[in-house]
Amino acid sequence: MKLYGYWRSSAAYRVRIALNLKQLTAEHISVHLVKNGGEQHSKDFEKLNPQHLVPALVDNNNQGEFCLTQSLAIIEYLEEKYPQQAILPANIEDKAIVRAMAQSIACEIHPLDNLRVLQYLVNEMGVDESKKMDWYHHWIHLGFNALESQLSLHAGQYCFGDQVTLADICLVPQVYNAQRFNVDLQAYPHIMRVWQNCNKLDDFIQAAPEQQDDAC
Amino acid sequence: MKLYGYWRSSAAYRVRIALNLKQLTAEHISVHLVKNGGEQHSKDFEKLNPQHLVPALVDNNNQGEFCLTQSLAIIEYLEEKYPQQAILPANIEDKAIVRAMAQSIACEIHPLDNLRVLQYLVNEMGVDESKKMDWYHHWIHLGFNALESQLSLHAGQYCFGDQVTLADICLVPQVYNAQRFNVDLQAYPHIMRVWQNCNKLDDFIQAAPEQQDDAC
Repeated sequence: MKLYGYWRSSAAYRVRIALNLKQLTAEHISVHLVKNGGEQHSKDFEKLNPQHLVPALVDNNNQGEFCLTQSLAIIEYLEEKYPQQAILPANIEDKAIVRAMAQSIACEIHPLDNLRVLQYLVNEMGVDESKKMDWYHHWIHLGFNALESQLSLHAGQYCFGDQVTLADICLVPQVYNAQRFNVDLQAYPHIMRVWQNCNKLDDFIQAAPEQQDDAC
Repeated sequence: MKLYGYWRSSAAYRVRIALNLKQLTAEHISVHLVKNGGEQHSKDFEKLNPQHLVPALVDNNNQGEFCLTQSLAIIEYLEEKYPQQAILPANIEDKAIVRAMAQSIACEIHPLDNLRVLQYLVNEMGVDESKKMDWYHHWIHLGFNALESQLSLHAGQYCFGDQVTLADICLVPQVYNAQRFNVDLQAYPHIMRVWQNCNKLDDFIQAAPEQQDDAC
């Protein structure tokens, strides 16, 4: 497998964690999201993913190579193809709760605070640095407040009891991202406990942005 | 089952389509997203969903009632609990492609163009109507351009060949939403063909916003 990603991309970080948890290896190909206006906009990358977004995972079957996009779709694919070290609970109600936690990050926080949105605010809407940071913090706090409340019902060592799941895979990169933008996370003791517990695990440690070859 | 939704909510619209496709009935409870500052912010609704978002689905098992949130998690739950009229392909690569199409809408377009974001732009950032509409149109066109390219590879009558899937369930409400904001969709012949084909089906027709009791 080949994983097209970028060290600081939260969505690529999720897929790196999932690959590690499942003890799968992939060739990591760096797509620099900033240099030269962003390599994700190149014609070559566009052929792989017309969305101009990382990650993209290239795998192969008996008909040749194929490319998958969208981090949650990629991770569900890995879960189905390589069921070892399951990252979703077996019970379908529990699975729905875990998926909802993951989506409360992937559909409600991250899309609003990712690079291209922050760039649009500044470049196209003329938003100043202070208002850009207000925007960033606003969506983190709104999302983390709700997630903290969910975790108070369901978390143990990790987001859902003591099993590492898709919810943790989404949470850890989002906390990393929030810290990078100096968000005060003291109001979220469950989130921070889970984040600390995950970051004791080798599979999370090795997936961290600073551990990647393209980190700078 | 009880579905807490709102006639114009794209995410509730998705769940309504899925329920219809699976020939499931639910009591529809309207949460007015605008009246009185938004009923989704009420204390009662917060107990169901601390995210203050519709839809929320209440179902029950032998231990009593439980509440699920996030439209895609709800729909995957329905798919697993009620496998009749499958809305995901059986093959895991195909399934990943369908999920990625759905997520290209649910994680890349809708989160940027939904009510609370448009409200934040106007109320907190002082953005005028014209720039708000530029924002709205920008994310639709970016997302639909990429999706059109994916559909050129995979679409038949519907987004993925001739099977109605999760991708169609996400596409139809997004097109409805785009038309409401006067987005010119001529550049997307595949999207519009699929949208028209879906809207010939009773399960989609009955789920449409204007067909709901709380429509006004």
